[in-house]
Amino acid sequence: MLAGIHKLPVVPEPIPIIGATGALGWGFAMRLARAGQPVVIGSRSAERAEEAAGRLREVAPDADVQGLANDEAAGKGPIVFLTVPFRAQAENLNNLREVLQPGQILVDCTVPTAAAVGGKATRTLGVWQGSAAQQAQEMVPDGVTVIGTLHTVSAKTLGNPDAELGEDILVCGDRKADKARVARIIELIPGLRAVNAGALEMARIVEQLTSLLISVNVRYKTSAGLRITGLGDDDDHWG
Amino acid sequence: MLAGIHKLPVVPEPIPIIGATGALGWGFAMRLARAGQPVVIGSRSAERAEEAAGRLREVAPDADVQGLANDEAAGKGPIVFLTVPFRAQAENLNNLREVLQPGQILVDCTVPTAAAVGGKATRTLGVWQGSAAQQAQEMVPDGVTVIGTLHTVSAKTLGNPDAELGEDILVCGDRKADKARVARIIELIPGLRAVNAGALEMARIVEQLTSLLISVNVRYKTSAGLRITGLGDDDDHWG
Repeated sequence: MLAGIHKLPVVPEPIPIIGATGALGWGFAMRLARAGQPVVIGSRSAERAEEAAGRLREVAPDADVQGLANDEAAGKGPIVFLTVPFRAQAENLNNLREVLQPGQILVDCTVPTAAAVGGKATRTLGVWQGSAAQQAQEMVPDGVTVIGTLHTVSAKTLGNPDAELGEDILVCGDRKADKARVARIIELIPGLRAVNAGALEMARIVEQLTSLLISVNVRYKTSAGLRITGLGDDDDHWG
Repeated sequence: MLAGIHKLPVVPEPIPIIGATGALGWGFAMRLARAGQPVVIGSRSAERAEEAAGRLREVAPDADVQGLANDEAAGKGPIVFLTVPFRAQAENLNNLREVLQPGQILVDCTVPTAAAVGGKATRTLGVWQGSAAQQAQEMVPDGVTVIGTLHTVSAKTLGNPDAELGEDILVCGDRKADKARVARIIELIPGLRAVNAGALEMARIVEQLTSLLISVNVRYKTSAGLRITGLGDDDDHWG
């Protein structure tokens, strides 16, 4: 057993992560798994999902991780993360429509960067509903809550098991209790603090931050992240 | 002479601040003055400008500060800050058209919050040019460069001489040398670090951060600010 692995996951059910063969989803899955949280890697292809799960086990031998096709993965836990590129978001949500059940939470992590249509990653697309998260809210079955988050952590840093994290993750959503459940999962990862950014509509702003940080990265040759000052480090804002 | 006042201003000419009778402009002027930087407070009314200068001298007795009508103030230095509310931005820029000279820098600090038209401060208005700063660039005379900055520092914190600052200020603009001049002025204020956020068009994102932080403030009952992680604290990025 690896030193430092917690054995008290806050969420007993596994966390399905749709699109976790990509950099962000894989890094998130890997970090959660190293914190002792069971995870399920979802992909269009069950084979690629299992391959990504194998890569995860290499850096977290004790990981409780499965690789499954997306539709099967999404049924494995009540809080489902969606970490696909924006150009694949609608297709994935269409496919999940038959699978997601009332009471589940869909955590949308997509960012409508203009790179989705061949533009610059420092620019974003206008989304009719206001943001990718609001588009997701329109597309999920009734009774499924959408939370938007995980836009500002660098996928590269997250996916590097040796990199230390020390930054905030903004969480947008319309129900505080659901946001708190998602916040708890994020905060299983050492070095991440979840900050309540407000209603789901605030995703209109928060999703843009990915492009802002990419602009900073270009200039500083780094993988920048975000911190909110003035919050009181010791407060538990999710209790 | 107050302890801790530097006597080596980086900018020998005064810094005119248009709208410095308002909270943000006044706080910025006060902080600069306490750092030993000559400032000029501009207002529509010379009398109100001089009144604000008087309030400034109360907390910075050695301040080199004048209060003048906006058009006179704007001619007093090469780098002019505009800190008026968004609903007054276009009118102010119209008035400044006869005054600003090629080679001057206009630093736009306005934020197109929906509060300008009676909406929520956690929401923003769509600006045809993309952002208030880009609107300013369209309205200034040829040869005047626009820089957008100072959107995320709390006016309340800035204006409280006893409050310690410890946050970053994002700077947007198309010419790095001009951004660097503005960054140097911002960094005269202890606790503020200026971060290059990229081209002026990035103001589309950066101006939204005011609304994001207001949303955070509502939830945490604080005056939040922003920090960018991963930049390397010792680097001088403006050299």
